[in-house]
Amino acid sequence: MEKREPEIITEKDQMRTWSRSMRAQGKTIGFVPTMGYLHRGHISLIQEARKWTDLLVVSIYVNPGQFSPTEDLSTYPADFQGDIDKLTALPGGVDIVFHPQNLYDYRNNGSESGENDTSTGASCRNNNCSDAKEEGREKAVVSCVEERQSGHETWVRVERLERGLCGKSRPVFFRGVATVVTKLFNIVEPDVAVFGKKDYQQWRIIRRMVRELDFPINVIGSEIVRDDDGLAMSSRNVHLSTEEREKALSINRSLSRAKVAAQNGQVSCRELRNSVIEAIQEGGGKVDYAEIVDQENLEVVEQIKSPVVFCVAAWFGKVRLIDNMEIDLRVQPVTIAVLA
Amino acid sequence: MEKREPEIITEKDQMRTWSRSMRAQGKTIGFVPTMGYLHRGHISLIQEARKWTDLLVVSIYVNPGQFSPTEDLSTYPADFQGDIDKLTALPGGVDIVFHPQNLYDYRNNGSESGENDTSTGASCRNNNCSDAKEEGREKAVVSCVEERQSGHETWVRVERLERGLCGKSRPVFFRGVATVVTKLFNIVEPDVAVFGKKDYQQWRIIRRMVRELDFPINVIGSEIVRDDDGLAMSSRNVHLSTEEREKALSINRSLSRAKVAAQNGQVSCRELRNSVIEAIQEGGGKVDYAEIVDQENLEVVEQIKSPVVFCVAAWFGKVRLIDNMEIDLRVQPVTIAVLA
Repeated sequence: MEKREPEIITEKDQMRTWSRSMRAQGKTIGFVPTMGYLHRGHISLIQEARKWTDLLVVSIYVNPGQFSPTEDLSTYPADFQGDIDKLTALPGGVDIVFHPQNLYDYRNNGSESGENDTSTGASCRNNNCSDAKEEGREKAVVSCVEERQSGHETWVRVERLERGLCGKSRPVFFRGVATVVTKLFNIVEPDVAVFGKKDYQQWRIIRRMVRELDFPINVIGSEIVRDDDGLAMSSRNVHLSTEEREKALSINRSLSRAKVAAQNGQVSCRELRNSVIEAIQEGGGKVDYAEIVDQENLEVVEQIKSPVVFCVAAWFGKVRLIDNMEIDLRVQPVTIAVLA
Repeated sequence: MEKREPEIITEKDQMRTWSRSMRAQGKTIGFVPTMGYLHRGHISLIQEARKWTDLLVVSIYVNPGQFSPTEDLSTYPADFQGDIDKLTALPGGVDIVFHPQNLYDYRNNGSESGENDTSTGASCRNNNCSDAKEEGREKAVVSCVEERQSGHETWVRVERLERGLCGKSRPVFFRGVATVVTKLFNIVEPDVAVFGKKDYQQWRIIRRMVRELDFPINVIGSEIVRDDDGLAMSSRNVHLSTEEREKALSINRSLSRAKVAAQNGQVSCRELRNSVIEAIQEGGGKVDYAEIVDQENLEVVEQIKSPVVFCVAAWFGKVRLIDNMEIDLRVQPVTIAVLA
């Protein structure tokens, strides 16, 4: 099959013009938003999207709105030409790579100028706009967007789903994700968008947001892709030393054991959580959270009765990894427990 | 000219299908969102929209998301047939009236069911999700949407602009407006939307939101329409007694005097505010706020140097009225001040 390089678009207007002209020709558009440094996990999202639509747009944009100033925005890995090569090598290719420079720069866009807004960063920092303060946490809840004083102040919040799990230690994260996805949806105007279930909370938040803001977009969740050793694919894995990577396998291994234990009748979340936390700690990781939550509303459960997902975040050296495992006891009957 | 009844659409999908089929035919779509009980103010918005696009959609929907449970949602005036008659009588008419029953009902829409969400109302009430609590206010910051436990939890916030003026006494209002307008934009998919400058803060918030969420929509502001006696048109005016209405004229009269005073050299906002507050109180009104703010970022100013808007909210009996006056000293030179 002939290789096909994607067209690279950097301007919002040009991106929208392309989408509208394609739609006018009756074509459907699939969309996979990424922050680049593509790996097999991203490729699986793109392959999933290909099943649904005529055309494919992949965005590559590291979103400052979802990083706090103390997080790893500056060291987030990037390899744009490598990404383009990978997309070109894909069977069927990708039609467009949308690669904007700065989605929060409005200087050439409407009368609301950025110049009046130099106080934004400081003002937002002082006021602690998010709900983090209400829960007694001390973290400053500004993102790198406010830190840069771009003047941007509109944020999409999915108020309940954004609170738990990663939201506790990353108070600006989901606000930033929901907002940039809204922006990208309004620029790309896709029919279908694919998100990875590795970022489970993010996937649920986007689905909920799409429903509740009435976006005319079908949001598809794509299964986690793992390396041969079981580690969930992540752009951040590149920062792991060989030793840290070996230690990080404790996440997937302990989650898999917990799933088997649940299928064998251990439905106490306290027991299951303790076993995973101990295994990761013994493996040399520092657990941020390990929670068993309802698959849909992400509320913590005590006993596994309905479909749940076991979500984990843990640090290995300077790298924070997340992983999860869906557990649905309706799907696999607990035959061994009955025999025991 | 022949009278033309608008087509009434109540379903989201049907609305979007209409818009997309019109766009496919190369037509442009104008949109005027309203809460019904139409008066000459609304008509002027519709006439403004007509200048810009081929087709016109007017929505009539009283949005529970912008009312707190203690506000006047249940008594908000309605006259759907009267509204249709007025729109039919308009020269050129209106193409579509979008009149949904409940924009927050997702039961037949995607897998995220409402049934899991019965805890929403209580949970949100207890957590005081908005920033009102941070500012020491005691008001419960839930809207009628949370009160009804619909499960809806996605909100668009324009964090700085929503805080002052009406935001202080109505903490859920602009969150609700920005969210329902986002929903309506995603359903109607217009090219142009017209908002009244009578709701000045709302107009600025929507413009800002459209810019920062990258909606492909041109937002037009339309001037305030006043009755012959000077009272700004509002659906709520119907609740004023003859006596209250007479008293309410103190708002517009004092604002007009303040504008003349500014043009004559009185640029101290303290003096100008005091004169308006006194006049409204003497007229029998209870002032909620009277603030002179920058036209763009709505920040309170001490002295009039740049274009400002003098915004007032006041109660007359059980009716809360708002009004405002733009003051731009660059437009009308202060000749009298020079002579004085």
